[in-house]
Amino acid sequence: MVKPESGPNQGLNMADVQNQFDSRRIKIDQVGVKKIHYPINVKDRANGSQRTVASVNMYVELPHHHKGTHMSRFIEVLSVHRHSITTSTIPSILSDMKARLQAEAAHLELTFPFFMEKAAPVTGAMSLMEYTCALVGTQTGEETDLSVSVCVPITTLCPCSREISDYGAHNQRGEVTVKVRYKQFFWMEDLIRLVESSASSEVYSLLKRADEKLVTERAYDNPRFVEDVVREVAVKLMAEENFTWFSVAAENFESIHNHSAYAFLEYTRPDGPHAEEGPLNGQ
Amino acid sequence: MVKPESGPNQGLNMADVQNQFDSRRIKIDQVGVKKIHYPINVKDRANGSQRTVASVNMYVELPHHHKGTHMSRFIEVLSVHRHSITTSTIPSILSDMKARLQAEAAHLELTFPFFMEKAAPVTGAMSLMEYTCALVGTQTGEETDLSVSVCVPITTLCPCSREISDYGAHNQRGEVTVKVRYKQFFWMEDLIRLVESSASSEVYSLLKRADEKLVTERAYDNPRFVEDVVREVAVKLMAEENFTWFSVAAENFESIHNHSAYAFLEYTRPDGPHAEEGPLNGQ
Amino acid sequence: MVKPESGPNQGLNMADVQNQFDSRRIKIDQVGVKKIHYPINVKDRANGSQRTVASVNMYVELPHHHKGTHMSRFIEVLSVHRHSITTSTIPSILSDMKARLQAEAAHLELTFPFFMEKAAPVTGAMSLMEYTCALVGTQTGEETDLSVSVCVPITTLCPCSREISDYGAHNQRGEVTVKVRYKQFFWMEDLIRLVESSASSEVYSLLKRADEKLVTERAYDNPRFVEDVVREVAVKLMAEENFTWFSVAAENFESIHNHSAYAFLEYTRPDGPHAEEGPLNGQ
Amino acid sequence: MVKPESGPNQGLNMADVQNQFDSRRIKIDQVGVKKIHYPINVKDRANGSQRTVASVNMYVELPHHHKGTHMSRFIEVLSVHRHSITTSTIPSILSDMKARLQAEAAHLELTFPFFMEKAAPVTGAMSLMEYTCALVGTQTGEETDLSVSVCVPITTLCPCSREISDYGAHNQRGEVTVKVRYKQFFWMEDLIRLVESSASSEVYSLLKRADEKLVTERAYDNPRFVEDVVREVAVKLMAEENFTWFSVAAENFESIHNHSAYAFLEYTRPDGPHAEEGPLNGQ
Repeated sequence: MVKPESGPNQGLNMADVQNQFDSRRIKIDQVGVKKIHYPINVKDRANGSQRTVASVNMYVELPHHHKGTHMSRFIEVLSVHRHSITTSTIPSILSDMKARLQAEAAHLELTFPFFMEKAAPVTGAMSLMEYTCALVGTQTGEETDLSVSVCVPITTLCPCSREISDYGAHNQRGEVTVKVRYKQFFWMEDLIRLVESSASSEVYSLLKRADEKLVTERAYDNPRFVEDVVREVAVKLMAEENFTWFSVAAENFESIHNHSAYAFLEYTRPDGPHAEEGPLNGQ
Repeated sequence: MVKPESGPNQGLNMADVQNQFDSRRIKIDQVGVKKIHYPINVKDRANGSQRTVASVNMYVELPHHHKGTHMSRFIEVLSVHRHSITTSTIPSILSDMKARLQAEAAHLELTFPFFMEKAAPVTGAMSLMEYTCALVGTQTGEETDLSVSVCVPITTLCPCSREISDYGAHNQRGEVTVKVRYKQFFWMEDLIRLVESSASSEVYSLLKRADEKLVTERAYDNPRFVEDVVREVAVKLMAEENFTWFSVAAENFESIHNHSAYAFLEYTRPDGPHAEEGPLNGQ
Repeated sequence: MVKPESGPNQGLNMADVQNQFDSRRIKIDQVGVKKIHYPINVKDRANGSQRTVASVNMYVELPHHHKGTHMSRFIEVLSVHRHSITTSTIPSILSDMKARLQAEAAHLELTFPFFMEKAAPVTGAMSLMEYTCALVGTQTGEETDLSVSVCVPITTLCPCSREISDYGAHNQRGEVTVKVRYKQFFWMEDLIRLVESSASSEVYSLLKRADEKLVTERAYDNPRFVEDVVREVAVKLMAEENFTWFSVAAENFESIHNHSAYAFLEYTRPDGPHAEEGPLNGQ
Repeated sequence: MVKPESGPNQGLNMADVQNQFDSRRIKIDQVGVKKIHYPINVKDRANGSQRTVASVNMYVELPHHHKGTHMSRFIEVLSVHRHSITTSTIPSILSDMKARLQAEAAHLELTFPFFMEKAAPVTGAMSLMEYTCALVGTQTGEETDLSVSVCVPITTLCPCSREISDYGAHNQRGEVTVKVRYKQFFWMEDLIRLVESSASSEVYSLLKRADEKLVTERAYDNPRFVEDVVREVAVKLMAEENFTWFSVAAENFESIHNHSAYAFLEYTRPDGPHAEEGPLNGQ
């Protein structure tokens, strides 16, 4: 190895390689930084705000004539805004990304654990439940498309197993992921409650014996396939005019198998601002 | 707990709960089994076929009037076909799924490690490289939509770091995921080679010192941003008439950061059988 | 950036940096390669052998006076032996590692999915079940220490929930990981069966309705805490003189919580060849 | 299915199944709850404390004559203490676990992202770096054993590649995990700095061009194998009397391979309070 003499690049007049002209004539849809972990503050109905840790992806569109984007600027934008990240502030974060990166379109994804205090159903014992939530925004020109996701752990009890068995019924933990587009601000807490009320039973961090009895019997009284869960959630979301589009996925970590049962549907409100011909329409 | 007397359900005339009528009038887009691990045989140019282990998802569409699907039938279909799973046999697997499950549409995803023997570039020392590949098919009525994905580890060396530094340049492992739709059969091996030739350097399981020297210098001679990698791959895929649609994602596990750099684009061939208005068209 | 003139290192007489003297006087316990994925053949009672894909870690001890080890040699040893990896051949693989790497001690870990054909309990419908297994060997001087692990998915039904509830009982998928040291060859298949017979019920890939009824009722008839599961497994393993040491861990993916219940114990046979004062002795 | 009449267990006088006598005469080393996610406050030199989200495991020893433990009590103990979890408060948390669970021994593991503000090396641009840290405590009788772990991302540049190549050198992101036992309180921040100073270069969330030049050249000036990294860290930790025991693991996500290079060592101070015959002693 021959170590070269120190050359002319001593930090002055460094070349801006990213800004160079690219002749391949290929626009890039998304370019940026992925899997940054950052502490953020998100809105919380009970306490005003809640500090959590997000995994963040930030991208912009790159025009065909530019060789590269400036990755460090994404982190600068994130640092400025991290103390208040809500569905209300995301449009201005996206505008900042577009301005700082000189881009026509910007995209932001934040995924984070969100905690809610929850009372056990009989004893009222309090504990914290964790839900994985996500905020996703894309801004193209002046238009911003926003969605909110919640991933909610639930109990499901198999209707078939209950029906054909002389006693007992297999049940398991499941997870429901709901993603919505909407007209007006809503609380993620309400969306989480809507999902929990659609399961055989909701789950808790802390249950005393009297609670465990209730939860066991409640699940037995409300058998649900994954098919039932996505339909129950869909019926409730369709009844809320505020949701213009949604998808619902339910996954059961089957207790009698080593694989999952799964169901998925999506819906577009016919008269919504984002109205498109969705798979559920016209039935 | 009161254990009930053994009732009338002794395995005869069991109710078929899944077949019951559902009045909620909500069709489900995808319902089935997820994350089944199964040994399969896939096509391999060097050896005819290769045995590997796939993670499998299998779904069908569920009409609004049926309460549930019959999950066990998916496993039956998979067991029958597992000895020969190729892009040629997927249409008939999907037909079987539709027939067995009485469904209008069926969907199948297989993700698996695929191994190729590879010679080190100077010494020719042989070793096996692993690539994560996926086959995805959807059949709606008589029409089948098929795609093939490969995920290829590569080396990228940063053009900016090389340009501004007096010596050295940061480089790292990256991953490129290419997904294609196509007209005629092609070998995954060729798609993998196409990606490897678009990086600063390909990677190997086994390198002796003379190989390591070549690989180090080759990377230095071919600096590439993630932006360059997706464009290089895109230029080559656009030149192949066989690919009617593709997406390319490149992710760098940056050696100077604790996050990734990322770029993504997709393309639809204007005159392809799947022609749609894609993001790259019209430039 | 100043690209240096091509220097004297054209592949001849390359320095062997790893072989250089290290003056820090610090021996390294384990050095080598980690997370290599490689296709291997393992022993299988039903079919003689079974091809699967392993995640492999290979390490040697590095004396304090050597700067580094030669990583490529691990891959060479693995390539030679990959067609027949069993508890019988591991000692010679370890010897090869020691010889090729000029080391006093060598360590090898292989983790892989292992498949067994399984009949549903009533209908006899056949399907494949996946178990994650591991072979771990360490050779120091002439002595080899070998262990075998199996990770077995099971159903557990909560004894407390069953007892206090008027009907139903929460149940869930669990996982039992057993690791053993032993005197003589045994079949992993038997160890897997031993674990499955200690649960509320074993799990299956494929169950028809008559099977699902049986599995549901069997779980209800055999309630088990994680504490019961590890004790049931321990009682059976203690009865087998062949096992000189073992550990058992059981984890329940609780259906009523979003966290796991967990139990762990280990045991050393008092008169075993590996006899040490273990935590269960002397009770 | 016959749904039983509501029986006598209406929440009064419920059986305490866990408290029942167990005749198998097998003590369980660890039983409790695993993978609970909970927001906690940890000590932070810059700000007094820092709110983060931990993954928590809590276990106690279960005497051979008890059938089960009371899982809900772990969550109760965690809820009480979550606002101040430090190495100073862990002994009293463990005492509470022992008292509430009537156990002889208790064990607690907390793993969490920890953030530190960091200035880029030339421009001084500030950003946050994430480190995964862990606190682990075991209390048996009156004695408490505590350890602290930090996992630190770094850059490593290969000495062999640099030496044999005419220009360039392969480099990559690596991770160093250090676990220590100690006599007196120390700041995790100092342990993290100690590791970062032992690498080819530390990594940053935010680097401007002048910083990137320095980081690139610094790595080239400080080539390190994984072997070098664990030895550099060990030399520094051995020089600090406060650390009575430690282990160091370094893993490189090699840029020229699809697997990792790995090195591991552990050390016990001969005169330390936990003095045992460790692998590094007596050399």
